[in-house]
Amino acid sequence: MNVTDKAPEDAPVPRRGGACLKVSQVIGRIGDKWTVMVIILLRQRRHRFNELKREIDGISQRMLTLTLRNMERDGLVTRTVTPSIPPRVDYELTDVGRSLAEPVKVLGDWAFQNLRHIAAAQASYDARTVGKAL
Amino acid sequence: MNVTDKAPEDAPVPRRGGACLKVSQVIGRIGDKWTVMVIILLRQRRHRFNELKREIDGISQRMLTLTLRNMERDGLVTRTVTPSIPPRVDYELTDVGRSLAEPVKVLGDWAFQNLRHIAAAQASYDARTVGKAL
Repeated sequence: MNVTDKAPEDAPVPRRGGACLKVSQVIGRIGDKWTVMVIILLRQRRHRFNELKREIDGISQRMLTLTLRNMERDGLVTRTVTPSIPPRVDYELTDVGRSLAEPVKVLGDWAFQNLRHIAAAQASYDARTVGKAL
Repeated sequence: MNVTDKAPEDAPVPRRGGACLKVSQVIGRIGDKWTVMVIILLRQRRHRFNELKREIDGISQRMLTLTLRNMERDGLVTRTVTPSIPPRVDYELTDVGRSLAEPVKVLGDWAFQNLRHIAAAQASYDARTVGKAL
């Protein structure tokens, strides 16, 4: 499915190599849970790499590096290196990144409000599934 | 980061095995691009499995099965089997699934409006990166 099919003026944007960037790819990226958590933290203020690592439960150094590099490439964050010893690296949201913070907040609020529903649905599904397996 | 830390009355919901369901897990699930595309299609009307498969570019049978099973387990869709020959399987959004359609639409609209920004940022980043590698 390519949502852009319905609006020729917003056809997929050509990229190097002839590939196209689709809405589904953008959603796959920005819906990623690590990206969402970085955005939630950077909404408040700029953060250093190590602050982000400390505040995001369970993220590895490698995954945080990859997440931030993708976000920088997508134009969502800027990376500022201060040549102190040791060098200091700060990340902050760009204007585009900031405009994404609102939709992400709406999604986060929904998730927060529906945690119990979803946990209950999962328990009920698992109970039914176990019942079938017997 | 566990957003629920800040609201004891909304602490993580205990599940079997002592694990907890966190906002980040819910977002990781609902932000998944396949889930988003299923929701966008089911917003309009109920769909048969094969209709979903046909309309979602690039999804494999296995991935669609997995996506729908997770969504059923999370209480977002219902699955109705009509015992015809061959059996007919329909999926539709539950009320909770329907309540998710709005945040998902906000995210999808953002992605749609920012496709060009993001593609341009990527091209610019790639040009800078290539420049550095020379």
